[in-house]
Amino acid sequence: MCQLLGMNCNVPTDIVFSFTGFAHRGGRTDVHKDGWGIAFFEGAGVRLFVDHESAIASPVAELIKRYPIKSTNVIAHIRKATQGHIALENCHPFVRELWGRYWVFAHNGDLKDFRPPLDGAFRPVGNTDSEQAFCYLLQQLRHRFGDVPPAADTLRMAVEELAREIAAHGVFNMMLSDGTTLFAHCSTRLHYIVRQHPFAQAKLSDEDLSVDFSEVTTPNDRVALIVTEPLTTNETWLPFAAGELKVFVDGTPVARP
Amino acid sequence: MCQLLGMNCNVPTDIVFSFTGFAHRGGRTDVHKDGWGIAFFEGAGVRLFVDHESAIASPVAELIKRYPIKSTNVIAHIRKATQGHIALENCHPFVRELWGRYWVFAHNGDLKDFRPPLDGAFRPVGNTDSEQAFCYLLQQLRHRFGDVPPAADTLRMAVEELAREIAAHGVFNMMLSDGTTLFAHCSTRLHYIVRQHPFAQAKLSDEDLSVDFSEVTTPNDRVALIVTEPLTTNETWLPFAAGELKVFVDGTPVARP
Repeated sequence: MCQLLGMNCNVPTDIVFSFTGFAHRGGRTDVHKDGWGIAFFEGAGVRLFVDHESAIASPVAELIKRYPIKSTNVIAHIRKATQGHIALENCHPFVRELWGRYWVFAHNGDLKDFRPPLDGAFRPVGNTDSEQAFCYLLQQLRHRFGDVPPAADTLRMAVEELAREIAAHGVFNMMLSDGTTLFAHCSTRLHYIVRQHPFAQAKLSDEDLSVDFSEVTTPNDRVALIVTEPLTTNETWLPFAAGELKVFVDGTPVARP
Repeated sequence: MCQLLGMNCNVPTDIVFSFTGFAHRGGRTDVHKDGWGIAFFEGAGVRLFVDHESAIASPVAELIKRYPIKSTNVIAHIRKATQGHIALENCHPFVRELWGRYWVFAHNGDLKDFRPPLDGAFRPVGNTDSEQAFCYLLQQLRHRFGDVPPAADTLRMAVEELAREIAAHGVFNMMLSDGTTLFAHCSTRLHYIVRQHPFAQAKLSDEDLSVDFSEVTTPNDRVALIVTEPLTTNETWLPFAAGELKVFVDGTPVARP
């Protein structure tokens, strides 16, 4: 199954991907062979690393192990199921620009007979339902608000409506960020946690991913992690309700207006 | 001075960046400290690696050394001049989507008082004149041709006109590719060469970049290299005329209609 991971923080926070042990996992060595990707904001810029190679052979996986990722907004997508041929242009996350900001999007799920009317403003390069949904979402936001991004609450309601509309076509667990806000919509399965000072190291249960908070020292630091499956067993992860959209800013979920 | 490099081939060709010796160059160790970037197409997808760190410390430079880049279209930008604070969002190449394809753009030069009327379809994320020019270029192409990309000759003439218009504001050496065609416009300085079978290894004169053609074996393989400064001293590089746009497809310059 695909896994989504999002991180939203009030200060740039380390996220560390470790592929140690990947090559020695026997039956599980092929779990990531259908691709994975991570996008993270550095200021207004975005770095996107995607791979459709097995993590064993991947030089990009090597880089991610070394790269000091410090970001306030991260979206990652780990593909665990074989879904036929994977091309670079079909790997999540996807990136587009709207309102002079980059938007990052990743999706877990399956949309049936989803052929949204795309007017050309945002057009899929690959052939996934996910990229179609992303293009449709940005197109509709631009239709609705023109060239001026709306106030946060208005934007939230618009994303909520659009996510509901898209989710009517199937499973639409998704994460979307413009570098400040992280929107997470749950169709079937999504969990989150907010971590605050003092931090310990959190480890993914499958040991491929860890988020190191131990360097973070100020009492005001706050990190929200949103994932498909809880990453740790010693903490209480809060499940999303089906059909729920949560909005995270500065490491905390924002209450609905 | 900034350096542009473009490669356009009829079969995916290796391009190898080597940062060997970077750390030991005395006075020259800081030449790339203002950022560099490379974008290459893999099918319809694009990989973009940019860095605003010194190549000595850069984990991205490490990756590029190892990464087996095989591509038919590559655009790279190497910054050699200090131009103040460099942020990720200001690093070349830039990527946007138009007509369901990714477009990659890099610019060398300086545009004075360039404030093109941007309608919001493509908006700069950073604050460079280059990204403004790129956004304006794509916007005008979309204005002119709507949702359907025109025939190659028509597109060429449109890019030529737009490049001339933009170049009126200053120096506009630029490269633009949609993964099939590579457009190169020269204001002041650009050279190219077409290499064919049998290939040898070509080495950048400054030893930071080499393109390894030795693996290429079929007699039909063809590679065009377009650069600011000739990369080798033992070959004849053809200079562009000032104000000239050349269009490369399948490793060869396409004659004007």
